[in-house]
Amino acid sequence: MPKHLQRELDNLKKELLVIASMVENATQKALTALVDRRQELAEEVVQEDFLINEKEVRIEEECLKILALHQPVAIDLRFVITALKVNNDLERVGDLAVNIAERAIFLSTREMLALTLDFPGMADKVQKMLSYSLDALTHNDAKLARQVITMDDAVDLANHKMIKELRRQMQKNPSTIKRASHLLSASSQLERIADLATNIAEDVVYMVEGEVIRHRTEDFIKREEEEED
Amino acid sequence: MPKHLQRELDNLKKELLVIASMVENATQKALTALVDRRQELAEEVVQEDFLINEKEVRIEEECLKILALHQPVAIDLRFVITALKVNNDLERVGDLAVNIAERAIFLSTREMLALTLDFPGMADKVQKMLSYSLDALTHNDAKLARQVITMDDAVDLANHKMIKELRRQMQKNPSTIKRASHLLSASSQLERIADLATNIAEDVVYMVEGEVIRHRTEDFIKREEEEED
Repeated sequence: MPKHLQRELDNLKKELLVIASMVENATQKALTALVDRRQELAEEVVQEDFLINEKEVRIEEECLKILALHQPVAIDLRFVITALKVNNDLERVGDLAVNIAERAIFLSTREMLALTLDFPGMADKVQKMLSYSLDALTHNDAKLARQVITMDDAVDLANHKMIKELRRQMQKNPSTIKRASHLLSASSQLERIADLATNIAEDVVYMVEGEVIRHRTEDFIKREEEEED
Repeated sequence: MPKHLQRELDNLKKELLVIASMVENATQKALTALVDRRQELAEEVVQEDFLINEKEVRIEEECLKILALHQPVAIDLRFVITALKVNNDLERVGDLAVNIAERAIFLSTREMLALTLDFPGMADKVQKMLSYSLDALTHNDAKLARQVITMDDAVDLANHKMIKELRRQMQKNPSTIKRASHLLSASSQLERIADLATNIAEDVVYMVEGEVIRHRTEDFIKREEEEED
């Protein structure tokens, strides 16, 4: 492989880790803001999202430049395509963190709901999935990526419990409806972050093993079905 | 350009139109099922989603094959990359159609909520956005793509109105909470389909003009802000 291609791929990997850490950081701040009612942290997430957006556009341009100028093949081609997709998914995680932060801002100005929700537990699971999927990407670790994929069900279950509990609360006390529906929304954003971490993990497996594993299991899992119970 | 590359690109375009029409069809069926309480249509959407997933994987493999074997440049490279991204977005639209169909199945078994919601109007807007974005892709029409992008605000507004109306209903009559929260969820899935149509339109502008226009305006629009009102 020509030296300058190697250099550009190394640089791309570095940039991808930068956006990854920006997005992880935004997610963590948004969740802390929600759980600890820290409005100033949530506002930071909202204000800094444009940096993630700018970074995403730059990384995408970088990927396209490498494809056009170096026409990489095999594992290098797979890496660039994976970078393109992961970059896109990370930007979406950033948007979801902003949504959670907006919920946190609203909730921090209202009286706290007196009910026990395991938001910290669910947030912890999702942050682990995101962080492991990015570690798997950094170290070409398909085994770790597959582990992330297995973690998604637990998050779906946590979201399902949250929905049930919040609906119960709304029924018991209609004055909580607005606050509870903001929490419902935050829970569903969190579940979507877990889905995107799963996407990233699937892309890592593809990059390392050259095999598309998407949809292998998901068609057997009727994720939303439990919600109907 | 070598003839076999041209043939493969034509074929890729054709395949992309096939998945596009599968996804449009699923979306339309899910919305009809929701509005007209037609459970059997909704069940079709759920059962047929695996076909969209399979098609997505095949199209992605096709894109990667073209990149690896033909190393296209300029507009051809941009087309393949756009196909890769649009394919991914379409599959996500398919998933959202499944979610809406699941809401429709649940709601069709319960008494209808006695309130006026403009679901048909919102659904119509979103279907137009999806269909225009795909027309723009087929005809390399950046002007039409830009028009799709301007339509997104109206959908956000419609979703916002829906949320307000449903919350009001839940407060007035707590026995409607479960049904109303399923409708809330359907409305938010619909709004996400509009976002994905916007993504597709932005990718078409990029393909035709070589310019990334993502995030140009969205940082000025605080989409979720109205929800806090």
